[in-house]
Amino acid sequence: MGFVEEVAAALPDGAVMTDPDLLEGYRYDRTDWLTPGQPAAAAFPRSTDEVAAAVKVAATHQVPIVPRGAGSSLAGASQAIDGCLILCLEQMNRIVEVDEVDQTVVVEPGVINAEISEATAPQGLWYPPDPASKAFCSIGGNIATNAGGLCCVKYGVTRDYVMGLEVVLADGTVIETGGRTIKGVAGFDLTGLLVGSEGTLGIVTGARLRLRPTPSGTATLVATFPTLGSAGDAVASITRSGLVCSLMEIMDRTTVCAVDDAYRMDLDRDCAALLLLQSDAPSPLRATEIAQASDHCAASGASYLATTEDPDESDALLQARRLAIPALEQQGTTLLDDVAVPRSRIPDLLARSEAIADSHEVTIGSFGHAGDGNLHPTLVVPREDDGTVLRRALAAFDALVLAALDLGGTITGEHGVGSIKAPFLEREIGAGNLAIQRRIKRALDPHGLLNPGRWL
Amino acid sequence: MGFVEEVAAALPDGAVMTDPDLLEGYRYDRTDWLTPGQPAAAAFPRSTDEVAAAVKVAATHQVPIVPRGAGSSLAGASQAIDGCLILCLEQMNRIVEVDEVDQTVVVEPGVINAEISEATAPQGLWYPPDPASKAFCSIGGNIATNAGGLCCVKYGVTRDYVMGLEVVLADGTVIETGGRTIKGVAGFDLTGLLVGSEGTLGIVTGARLRLRPTPSGTATLVATFPTLGSAGDAVASITRSGLVCSLMEIMDRTTVCAVDDAYRMDLDRDCAALLLLQSDAPSPLRATEIAQASDHCAASGASYLATTEDPDESDALLQARRLAIPALEQQGTTLLDDVAVPRSRIPDLLARSEAIADSHEVTIGSFGHAGDGNLHPTLVVPREDDGTVLRRALAAFDALVLAALDLGGTITGEHGVGSIKAPFLEREIGAGNLAIQRRIKRALDPHGLLNPGRWL
Repeated sequence: MGFVEEVAAALPDGAVMTDPDLLEGYRYDRTDWLTPGQPAAAAFPRSTDEVAAAVKVAATHQVPIVPRGAGSSLAGASQAIDGCLILCLEQMNRIVEVDEVDQTVVVEPGVINAEISEATAPQGLWYPPDPASKAFCSIGGNIATNAGGLCCVKYGVTRDYVMGLEVVLADGTVIETGGRTIKGVAGFDLTGLLVGSEGTLGIVTGARLRLRPTPSGTATLVATFPTLGSAGDAVASITRSGLVCSLMEIMDRTTVCAVDDAYRMDLDRDCAALLLLQSDAPSPLRATEIAQASDHCAASGASYLATTEDPDESDALLQARRLAIPALEQQGTTLLDDVAVPRSRIPDLLARSEAIADSHEVTIGSFGHAGDGNLHPTLVVPREDDGTVLRRALAAFDALVLAALDLGGTITGEHGVGSIKAPFLEREIGAGNLAIQRRIKRALDPHGLLNPGRWL
Repeated sequence: MGFVEEVAAALPDGAVMTDPDLLEGYRYDRTDWLTPGQPAAAAFPRSTDEVAAAVKVAATHQVPIVPRGAGSSLAGASQAIDGCLILCLEQMNRIVEVDEVDQTVVVEPGVINAEISEATAPQGLWYPPDPASKAFCSIGGNIATNAGGLCCVKYGVTRDYVMGLEVVLADGTVIETGGRTIKGVAGFDLTGLLVGSEGTLGIVTGARLRLRPTPSGTATLVATFPTLGSAGDAVASITRSGLVCSLMEIMDRTTVCAVDDAYRMDLDRDCAALLLLQSDAPSPLRATEIAQASDHCAASGASYLATTEDPDESDALLQARRLAIPALEQQGTTLLDDVAVPRSRIPDLLARSEAIADSHEVTIGSFGHAGDGNLHPTLVVPREDDGTVLRRALAAFDALVLAALDLGGTITGEHGVGSIKAPFLEREIGAGNLAIQRRIKRALDPHGLLNPGRWL
């Protein structure tokens, strides 16, 4: 029997798809300026046993496996490769257990991020990591990339919330990692190693996540600044004071103007940068914290300040940030970059971004998580482009990555290495470190079948 | 040349010790009821290059290496084994760099935990993880065990603070892991894998740690409870409310009475458990938080409550917890266990501990980190014991570990597996998980030279 027949026989009827037209939608992720390969088939298992069965058949036939959650990777980590089996976890989308007392939830990998907090809201509990894509990205993908988000500045990233995993290994065996306790040091931290491994070490089929009590509300501050330096000073001054905001976002002038062009929000189009800050501390502390943050911004030279505790007004202020990508997308096709620098270097990175936009003659709107030093410079290519601007944009994309490294930063803060950052990885981590990563990869996946051809 | 001569030749004069009398002190760690092996030599490198040189000679001669920080392991992780080289990192004790703006510090592994916060205090910065041994344990050992402590309930454990490492591998090559950014997902999390690996994957020769602004003060609450269940209810009720204490410790009646016997602190000897809570939120919030915590304790049936914001009074209240080990040590030799359970199972674990004390006819004082579900049941063996009580105590020690597993917990919350928990590891993590750990071990240390004979 050929591979496709055998994997179809190993799974229930209808769980394996080979129709090229239907497969087409599963070839791509959100890195749609890359050209994916042509898969042999896509499988839609509904249980850990079915995942294991599919992996075993693929191992027998030495067929590479591309695990896929919601296909929302911005790093080309879930694009099809030639001849692969796309292992779609979207049917494994059950919330298995909510433990109100110990504040944990057990989920299957296909559960959408935002559905977790929806399911646990009745118990007053909340799953913090909140990528901008939380309405449509899957927790399996979040785990694969160690996804971040807006509230990470206070609450940490995905790895901080994964207590334990169920994983199908490259040979189809199933292991569990981690446990049910907040602390634990029994052996190597395999849970932490698997988080962020981008599907290269095993297929996550279940996860126990830590929850937190839902904050009771937020207070919000918007501040604009005449220079990048003054915005950076405000971030540094707030951080040094010990104030921990639950959100600390920044947008540069290009992004502010794009949002204002698209949505007429009466934003300060002359500012160099706009900061958005929130506190979710219990009332009345959140008002106090936001007032203190406002004082820091004023002392750093803010040209405009507005605060609110009203939920609707807060939402309206946050809209400017939420609309950054849609606004830039109105100007053309976007290439979203993802780099991080030591927090103090944010103004330098924004200045480099402006300089790269000028020298490469391409629009770059930069925005992101100022409190974490993690920015998303976003390149805009006009839709009528004949390839000329795209080439300049791709060069600018690379220049931004090198600028982050030059500033003591990283090639990826939260989107992952995937395909697009692979050429830069060794430059960041060094040949010795990369060699160890490859040894670990070989130890767990000796035939290189799990999501091959990315960065290992 | 023999091994000892060659390693001595590779290091500066006086850096290698072979005198059996002088070696004696380096054979033991704080798990002194185990009998260590007889080392071939001890080396005291002063630089990464010297560590690499010693490791290379050991690799050539296939001599096992036992890395050693301050020798404060309570799990037998740094006891000598026969014929080994003890690699003492105590001379590598420099604080290399304090970055006030990005709130990081670079340290060598021999730096004592408490010295870090002392060094960064002038900048208003603080290194949170605070094992009870912080006055004499080394940061290298903290990293090797992913050490916890009292403030972890709010601030997390060692792994949460290690941004990057410099590591000498088993063949003497040097790699760096991690970086200078708060977020980063460039490749596998080797930093997190090495933290908690107990010297079995590499020798940490440097670390960049994250700091936090020093809290401005604390408010403290002491509460005693007539039953274990009511103390557990208070912990659950506070946690569910979203209140995050900066310290949440528990002591059982045996420990309370031992402290009162030794130090006449007028404690409530009839209580089933004593809770100690602190808030380090900015004033006036900390008083509010502690008042709320007090209300939760009262509603759960506390028989005694006392709160203070006065630093000296706070210190006096905390003394009862700090004196737990010294007080139990006055009654005999202590065997400190370290187990963790889901937070809600703390009362069950304390009840099991009492039952095990009865059935094994041995004194067990239990205390620890209620907010994390991490307890240290401590067995007391009279100094005049002929071995009879010690045998019962060792059986009780094992029974406590099995009780923790039975309650959905872990064999070690923060002390590590080392030698003493090795027999229980597979029962917790499963054969498949342990097999993967051994594959990773072989990938990084194919000849098994780094701290062998513990749990891999």
